[in-house]
Amino acid sequence: MDARVLNALIAAIVNTLEVLLGRKPEIGKPGVLKEIKPKFDLVTVIGFTGGVEGNLIYSFNPGTALDVVSKMMNMPYEALDELAMSAIGELGNMIAGALAMNLEKIGCKINITPPTVVIGKDMRITVDGLALQLPVGIKNEGDVETILSVKGTVKCTKA
Amino acid sequence: MDARVLNALIAAIVNTLEVLLGRKPEIGKPGVLKEIKPKFDLVTVIGFTGGVEGNLIYSFNPGTALDVVSKMMNMPYEALDELAMSAIGELGNMIAGALAMNLEKIGCKINITPPTVVIGKDMRITVDGLALQLPVGIKNEGDVETILSVKGTVKCTKA
Repeated sequence: MDARVLNALIAAIVNTLEVLLGRKPEIGKPGVLKEIKPKFDLVTVIGFTGGVEGNLIYSFNPGTALDVVSKMMNMPYEALDELAMSAIGELGNMIAGALAMNLEKIGCKINITPPTVVIGKDMRITVDGLALQLPVGIKNEGDVETILSVKGTVKCTKA
Repeated sequence: MDARVLNALIAAIVNTLEVLLGRKPEIGKPGVLKEIKPKFDLVTVIGFTGGVEGNLIYSFNPGTALDVVSKMMNMPYEALDELAMSAIGELGNMIAGALAMNLEKIGCKINITPPTVVIGKDMRITVDGLALQLPVGIKNEGDVETILSVKGTVKCTKA
């Protein structure tokens, strides 16, 4: 995968979470995934089309998710109900929006889809293309698992 | 939701499945969903951006899915392994591609994302926007549950 796409994603995650939570998340070591078995039962999918085609998928530790939702809502939140799931989707919108802006700087124009948030058990996911895993730590190491899948070649016009 | 979008979806499903399976699927009565609890444990999500923004989500009866995969692969298929999941995603690509062509005829240009195929248990899904459910019958009534979620207004230039 084009390293610039990964860097654009890391910058999007770090900046969005820092603005939202008041501190930088920890970014772990990226790796390529052969098989996607989300680490946690709360999974968000946001697709993108254009210069980069694929999906941004992230699975959240439920406790960390509730902490983030509480911060976004500015009130304590204790259950992953529909409103909390919407907030987690909105967080994905913010990160994907920042990713789109970062990619535009290197000449990749993308459009993002509305988020789909899934709660389930024993999930297995298949994507079309290369899947890159990026662990993100908010409260604890790797409490958010981010997966970026990219299909085909990246079309960025700037070197 | 704009009835033309629903009609474009129905035509895309009927034509794609008819070409693939050699007979027309049965289309049930559409309805608006408040809460998405997929009927089956095999769920595909394909996003779209442009004149219509949203997601096409469908959940498949596993037995029917294997029949369709066997037809696509032209050989018997008995397990929902990664290759079968890819084929189910590819079916979504075909339907979403047909939807894009049908929408273009009414002046809605959309781009579609690569499919994400999820197998899991007890799934609950939250989308951004209105969710319309459309039962589709391939082998039995409603053995494919199709959900179209659309965010905001539809931008089609032709009346």
